[in-house]
Amino acid sequence: VSLKGKRVLVTSGPTREYLDPIRFLSNASSGRMGAALARAALKRGASVTVVTGPAEAPLPSRAKTVAIRTGLEMLRETLRRARGASIVIGAAAVSDWRVASPAKKKIKRSSSDLRLTLKPNPDIIKSVARRRRPGQIVVGFALETHDRLTHAAAKMKSKGLDLIVANGPSALGSDRSSATLILRGGWKRELVSVSKDELAAAIFDAIEDLA
Amino acid sequence: VSLKGKRVLVTSGPTREYLDPIRFLSNASSGRMGAALARAALKRGASVTVVTGPAEAPLPSRAKTVAIRTGLEMLRETLRRARGASIVIGAAAVSDWRVASPAKKKIKRSSSDLRLTLKPNPDIIKSVARRRRPGQIVVGFALETHDRLTHAAAKMKSKGLDLIVANGPSALGSDRSSATLILRGGWKRELVSVSKDELAAAIFDAIEDLA
Repeated sequence: VSLKGKRVLVTSGPTREYLDPIRFLSNASSGRMGAALARAALKRGASVTVVTGPAEAPLPSRAKTVAIRTGLEMLRETLRRARGASIVIGAAAVSDWRVASPAKKKIKRSSSDLRLTLKPNPDIIKSVARRRRPGQIVVGFALETHDRLTHAAAKMKSKGLDLIVANGPSALGSDRSSATLILRGGWKRELVSVSKDELAAAIFDAIEDLA
Repeated sequence: VSLKGKRVLVTSGPTREYLDPIRFLSNASSGRMGAALARAALKRGASVTVVTGPAEAPLPSRAKTVAIRTGLEMLRETLRRARGASIVIGAAAVSDWRVASPAKKKIKRSSSDLRLTLKPNPDIIKSVARRRRPGQIVVGFALETHDRLTHAAAKMKSKGLDLIVANGPSALGSDRSSATLILRGGWKRELVSVSKDELAAAIFDAIEDLA
């Protein structure tokens, strides 16, 4: 089925989880995968919204952009916009934890250890999948440093996704990377050293086959 | 005294303190202040080395660049190069803490809290000042959210600096900002809504008066 006229929602980039007004927990996501997905969906005639953390990759001007900073902000903006979308792709590298009690003022340097308690952040793409409308397609990413396929397949199941893209840490911030697409039912497709544009095209090919 | 032919060493950008191979503690430093300092020193005829964390602002090609990621890496590279420098300026937003026991594999998401112990990172510019050669000038920055001048003046004293630049959180990642230069002896100069190039020029004016 064609993407033409469909609404595609993409989450992209890292989130920042603040300890105080200056310091935060984050990761090296550049937002390039999200930008490539937005370009590919526009090219296929979809209308595109991107909910994005602070990322360096420029997004296409024809995409509607919603800028957020924290995982909780991304959850709220994504759930609000997921209702009207035919396809939701969680390409953001959302922090799995946030700081339990962020300080209002910059924490003063001291010579003693600092103990931080981190609380689990909600799983955004799982929350989207749990509320899915009939026919809506929900796609996730799994970044794994070890036992990539096993972990990714388990995530796809527990989160109730239609498709998951498993990749390694070299994907973060780089131009080319290798990835495995895993469909519900266990079908796998291996992509070796592809650009993010090529990976985005393969993801939408798979979605068009599903839809 | 002129900067011509002098060696200037600048630290720039944020550092990343890893929890595991993917996640880190950092801040929004863009490296723009360090880049402005490098441009200004080159313009005045100095030779310039920049020890820089992962920052978005491009550095001038005539500056020698040393790329690091963590605070400990920045300490090592800065101390090694400080010996030969007439002027050392610590413009980096070095994390005051690092993770005590980083994980070798990506920490699995879980439904329980994560407790992190952070250890104090060494104070790089203080370490440089402690080892200073006669005539060497050491300059620091103080980013404060509250009681800016009091905290900055105390830092200048305890770290043994010649000059400190006090600014607020709006300086991080922005083009224009306000700052106060404080010289040893308590002389202050207020700069309101200046560009980073203007601030860099004012800092080297002050250094040329000192030297």
